[in-house]
Amino acid sequence: MTFETVELHKAHEGLQGVYRHASTATGGSMTFALYLPPQARAGKVPLVTYLSGLTCSHANVMDKGEYRKAAAEHGIAILCPDTSPRGEGVANDDAYDLGQGAGFYVDATQAPWAPHFNMWTYVTEELPALIAAHFPLDMSRQGITGHSMGGHGALTVALRHPGRFRSVSAFAPIVAPARVPWGQKAFPAYLGADPAKWRRHDAVALIEDGARLAEILVDQGTADNFLEGQLKPELLKAACDRAGIDLTLRLQEGYDHSYHFISTFMASHIGWHAMRLKS
Amino acid sequence: MTFETVELHKAHEGLQGVYRHASTATGGSMTFALYLPPQARAGKVPLVTYLSGLTCSHANVMDKGEYRKAAAEHGIAILCPDTSPRGEGVANDDAYDLGQGAGFYVDATQAPWAPHFNMWTYVTEELPALIAAHFPLDMSRQGITGHSMGGHGALTVALRHPGRFRSVSAFAPIVAPARVPWGQKAFPAYLGADPAKWRRHDAVALIEDGARLAEILVDQGTADNFLEGQLKPELLKAACDRAGIDLTLRLQEGYDHSYHFISTFMASHIGWHAMRLKS
Repeated sequence: MTFETVELHKAHEGLQGVYRHASTATGGSMTFALYLPPQARAGKVPLVTYLSGLTCSHANVMDKGEYRKAAAEHGIAILCPDTSPRGEGVANDDAYDLGQGAGFYVDATQAPWAPHFNMWTYVTEELPALIAAHFPLDMSRQGITGHSMGGHGALTVALRHPGRFRSVSAFAPIVAPARVPWGQKAFPAYLGADPAKWRRHDAVALIEDGARLAEILVDQGTADNFLEGQLKPELLKAACDRAGIDLTLRLQEGYDHSYHFISTFMASHIGWHAMRLKS
Repeated sequence: MTFETVELHKAHEGLQGVYRHASTATGGSMTFALYLPPQARAGKVPLVTYLSGLTCSHANVMDKGEYRKAAAEHGIAILCPDTSPRGEGVANDDAYDLGQGAGFYVDATQAPWAPHFNMWTYVTEELPALIAAHFPLDMSRQGITGHSMGGHGALTVALRHPGRFRSVSAFAPIVAPARVPWGQKAFPAYLGADPAKWRRHDAVALIEDGARLAEILVDQGTADNFLEGQLKPELLKAACDRAGIDLTLRLQEGYDHSYHFISTFMASHIGWHAMRLKS
């Protein structure tokens, strides 16, 4: 496995890199961003993976997420994968919520998506193996977070990999995709018509089916246009209450779905992860 | 004078707005970003204007500058103007360093630029009057900063408006445009062939000609590709030394010309301005 360095900038005393590599999982070229804090010069550092939302690439949170200052202070690396395969020869759809930029962190089984849309395998296996081999990361101390579709990704990846992540958080996550329009469009397209196949990619269903995490932090803006129709944090709260999962759900007054919301609470999330990754 | 709100987001407890208005100075529609800290709900707040560099609009620093957290902590508003007039009917050039995105904060006297390229009047008169009339800003407590071409703008605007700004800083500024390729291309195009006309838009020349500021803060990355050919902070240092201007010139090891450099030191600049604006 090799990769090329697309960009490398000193930032907040650490290094913000952008890298490209040939991906077996998605059958094409994939780009990711990785921030190494200054502490990585002296040894391995914990890793927090941030999964992005619809329409985003690795670049949106790298540009607008304001994570580097807190990551440098706490000595934590931040990994920002893309949200789908891209490029010529990769299937796409004119809609913003299907196809390129909208991989939903699943391995597609349906045409025309199946050949390339394997973001589940990419973010859970291929990309972690690649970065563990090339960067000073302590993969025994990992956290995961994400925004919207990426919050869905963070929750489902963590719920299905017990013990891998010491800390799990999300910004305005899609908590029950099978019950809202975004998932009800994407899941049949990627996974087929049988709703039973969707449950392993639905955080609330996974909890109902017995998956467990010790605790979860979720921030949700109250002025988020998608709150009632697509996000429904109350479903996660009910599921966590029944399952005995310690969910900290913070409703943030007046914040919307944009990176202005994410960047406002990013340092708080990184501090929350740091407390668990460094203890 | 009226304006329309293009975007408005709660961010770090304050409000990040993007506004558009018809501009008399540039004879067209202009867009700017203004961040109001939470303290602006209770009364007028000090203002720091950030002038952007080549190729940028109001959006680059709004997206990547990481100024909101520090501005909210210190209770300071941040104004981010565009770098030139834009749109159909506005002259342009294929190069990145002339025309749209490259107004150099001058009032052009030459064809084809003169009708619209009046960024000096725009940022020193029209835009301050507009925002003072519509937002809770204490215009008696102003600071100014900027990056590269915008650092040039900040220094020249401050030097030519004694008493208007209590605090002046810059990130990797063009300190002597008349002596480097960027200015030697833009100034003849905008101001004509006579170098005597350029001196009023050249910070080092202005200081040589008697303009004074009490103090200036400049950060400059040592890995900046433009350091030796275009930026030449040593010329500003020599001029300030001779003039008795208290220049704090910080050479930041390993930082380049990108927003990764700017965002790393933004909080330090805002703190520096705050100390002077709030005393």
